[in-house]
Amino acid sequence: MAFRSIVYILVVLIVEVLSGQDPKRPNIVILFADDLGYADLEVYGHPTSHTPNLNQLATNGLLFTQFYVSSPVCSPSRASLLTGRYQTRSGVWPGVFVPDTAGGLPLNETTIAEVLQPLGYHTAIVGKWHLGVGKEGMFLPTNQGFDEYLGIPYSHDMCPCNFCFYPNVSCLSKCDDQYTACPLFDGGSIIEQPADLTTLHDKYLNRSLHVISDNAAKGTPFFLYYAFHHTHHPKYAGKQFRNTTIRGAFGDGLAELDDGVGQVMAQLEKSGVLENTFVLFTSDNGPSLRWEKIGGNAGLLKCGKGTTYEGGQRVPAIASWKGRITPGRTKELGSTLDILPTICSMVGVPPPQTTIDGVDISTLLFEGGKSPRDRFFYYPTTVKPDYGLYAVRYRQYKAHYYTQGSVNSDPNNHDPDCRPTAKRTAHNPPLLFDLNQDPSELFDLSNDTDYASILQEISKVKAQFEATMVFGESQNSKHTPDVEPCCNKPCDPFPQCCTCSKSKKDFHLRYMP
Amino acid sequence: MAFRSIVYILVVLIVEVLSGQDPKRPNIVILFADDLGYADLEVYGHPTSHTPNLNQLATNGLLFTQFYVSSPVCSPSRASLLTGRYQTRSGVWPGVFVPDTAGGLPLNETTIAEVLQPLGYHTAIVGKWHLGVGKEGMFLPTNQGFDEYLGIPYSHDMCPCNFCFYPNVSCLSKCDDQYTACPLFDGGSIIEQPADLTTLHDKYLNRSLHVISDNAAKGTPFFLYYAFHHTHHPKYAGKQFRNTTIRGAFGDGLAELDDGVGQVMAQLEKSGVLENTFVLFTSDNGPSLRWEKIGGNAGLLKCGKGTTYEGGQRVPAIASWKGRITPGRTKELGSTLDILPTICSMVGVPPPQTTIDGVDISTLLFEGGKSPRDRFFYYPTTVKPDYGLYAVRYRQYKAHYYTQGSVNSDPNNHDPDCRPTAKRTAHNPPLLFDLNQDPSELFDLSNDTDYASILQEISKVKAQFEATMVFGESQNSKHTPDVEPCCNKPCDPFPQCCTCSKSKKDFHLRYMP
Repeated sequence: MAFRSIVYILVVLIVEVLSGQDPKRPNIVILFADDLGYADLEVYGHPTSHTPNLNQLATNGLLFTQFYVSSPVCSPSRASLLTGRYQTRSGVWPGVFVPDTAGGLPLNETTIAEVLQPLGYHTAIVGKWHLGVGKEGMFLPTNQGFDEYLGIPYSHDMCPCNFCFYPNVSCLSKCDDQYTACPLFDGGSIIEQPADLTTLHDKYLNRSLHVISDNAAKGTPFFLYYAFHHTHHPKYAGKQFRNTTIRGAFGDGLAELDDGVGQVMAQLEKSGVLENTFVLFTSDNGPSLRWEKIGGNAGLLKCGKGTTYEGGQRVPAIASWKGRITPGRTKELGSTLDILPTICSMVGVPPPQTTIDGVDISTLLFEGGKSPRDRFFYYPTTVKPDYGLYAVRYRQYKAHYYTQGSVNSDPNNHDPDCRPTAKRTAHNPPLLFDLNQDPSELFDLSNDTDYASILQEISKVKAQFEATMVFGESQNSKHTPDVEPCCNKPCDPFPQCCTCSKSKKDFHLRYMP
Repeated sequence: MAFRSIVYILVVLIVEVLSGQDPKRPNIVILFADDLGYADLEVYGHPTSHTPNLNQLATNGLLFTQFYVSSPVCSPSRASLLTGRYQTRSGVWPGVFVPDTAGGLPLNETTIAEVLQPLGYHTAIVGKWHLGVGKEGMFLPTNQGFDEYLGIPYSHDMCPCNFCFYPNVSCLSKCDDQYTACPLFDGGSIIEQPADLTTLHDKYLNRSLHVISDNAAKGTPFFLYYAFHHTHHPKYAGKQFRNTTIRGAFGDGLAELDDGVGQVMAQLEKSGVLENTFVLFTSDNGPSLRWEKIGGNAGLLKCGKGTTYEGGQRVPAIASWKGRITPGRTKELGSTLDILPTICSMVGVPPPQTTIDGVDISTLLFEGGKSPRDRFFYYPTTVKPDYGLYAVRYRQYKAHYYTQGSVNSDPNNHDPDCRPTAKRTAHNPPLLFDLNQDPSELFDLSNDTDYASILQEISKVKAQFEATMVFGESQNSKHTPDVEPCCNKPCDPFPQCCTCSKSKKDFHLRYMP
């Protein structure tokens, strides 16, 4: 734990003592999907997905139609969710962490878990971390405010992939064979390598349900961050869900995820804490369209993962709190950046003493009011301080200063702007779209003189924001195989030797990089 | 009324007497939108539409994700809704009726109104007819089984258009100036010419509410076919809804339509007949993408109006019957073709004695079962007997034998297949898509040998169907200005003289072509 986090804890504790806060604080559950696109859920218009539990969550919750993540790819998006700060500040740029990345989310960043832990919360993460492993696991969640962790610490394609569907059906696409087998961590220890994708859901779900029931029974407030691997490549599903949906492999994985959501909600109810728990379901970025029939879907939004078009950064989001959040839909703006400051507000502590990019959206959530957010800033996957922002949304208008396609938005996309062949292109004047009337970013207004003053206003908003941006040192630039998780280390031949036999059922090898 | 209809009435009456049917038959309300695309409603994924009443209808009803109309344009689609037969049989081809079309839906076709009228139903149509006017109004609804009619008998752009938004705001696009001003009919009489778009909704709604309350009060079963003009070009909205939505002109018109839906549902409840009324909301075809920012949206479906891609013919559809239809969603197939046979089943009479293309989907509606429909046949706008079907869906597979773009799917569409420059193209082997896994028709399977047998099967299904197809004489080929509705006729200069002054508040001129 770094100096800044320690100072923050002291501030929080002093506030606690001075305010005499009611110790009955809400539980927080964040259900985070991976590469799930805007149109992948039934309630967002997908015709063949099977998501009865998410339908129910939407019926009982507040569905956002304009909710943004801070990046069109995984690690930076997750960094912002947990810190309320743009990835550019924390240093989680460019791109994403891979198993041999030396860096991670810097320890002096304050995560939601680090906000809640000193208040007596039990803090747990289950699933995909993707904010670094580092030397001796220094960037693992247990060093970032989480009391417990069960999960694979990055994407489950960042390793050789073998069996994806119960019992031993091969994966539908190739993974990154050059790395060690995907490790399943429990705390700082590897308990399975390679992690078995056909039973992964059950393990995650069981742990999540225990976090809820155990803490509810003890009367301990808890923060459960349940980050599903499903719907990211390679698609996978266990016994109960393989071959169960008409949407195929993507649909089966999504149905398994949906079942997890349903069981979490049922456990909250069964444990008697549903009315004291804030639940947020959302996704880390848009759909990876490159996987075509088994990829996700952005619906009417332009392009997908990897781009700063809406399909890359506008995601499904449903907030639920029985008795506190009035069920419905909102067209107001929200972002994962807002979750940390909103949680701070819910639990009655000040946000961390640093630049926070999120805003407290409590009034929107609990009173059905307007969102305090009227702008959003889009950084690309390939962040470069020289280029800065690619796009800015201000009110209903979005100006693209740069655009760029992505392999994740499909080399064969009908829309040439989405393809990886669409190299970075500067626009002056910036392309301008009215997202309320033209959510698909089809009809450029930048040459219409009626919009000249809006463009000027947006350029001011952009300049104001960029004047505040201090780029943290890039954490993604150094690589070394030394940090790759290996249950057998030291062993030879590396990385193939890093497997622990399934027959050793009780292995709980200490992770020693 | 033609001979075939008279024979049918006699059959129905005989069945009645012999079966001793319970006279307490359900009311039928069909709410029909115009050019409303698959993704235009909030519950189908539009982020900025305002449709609270349709949201509520969906909450209380059964939402279809795979519901089809028989044509990607208006007149043929409406002919099939009302007859349960492909437009090719009835002769409503090619294209749509215009004000000077001599033909109409042939009188020997049996409409839903003609099924219900002899059973003692009061039958009313409010809104857009678009199945012909003809000499002396011979094809107007009152000659097709409807006791009453209030409406413009074709699209409201098939006339000069002036004011579209309350009180006197110009229309946003040009209409067809060569025709007489749009007439508002009451029965066979023109009561307003040009029809005032800024008050049209109020007139339609009032009439619809009266149909419900009057018949409910009398204990008479009723059939209300409320066919909105909204969301077809030119967009319009009255006092209460103009400039009320963030989606702009399209959104304002849609909000007005939505209000109509809400008021109809409220009136059913207030009149005590909600639990004895089957309500269906759907649209006549996909969105007219050519209107770009103020056009509709097909979401993840390919192309829009005018094409045989999914965006042209798959539409939003919600069925509701309090206490009879279990609220939810269905991925089963349905079609407007199925409405007539399903209504026949509901009211306990045989379907008309002719080839009916629809199937009875009562078990799907009322028991949550499978749909008896496992196939769907797509005819293009430009029907030609020589070419026959353009596409066939069988189970989840769709084979395109021909494809063709349309001006209504936007000359600037990113997808070149949608544009009008995409001329009719034959495909051999046909293009093949798995609509359950690939609803956007992106990933052709026709060259994958795994699907060869499916293609063969579909070709058999196609041949079987086409062997039954007897093309009715085209009703759309003869044109004469003599049939254009004109409240002042004979007058000069025609057609400009065909207006009746607003100051003559009580004019009820007999329509005399």
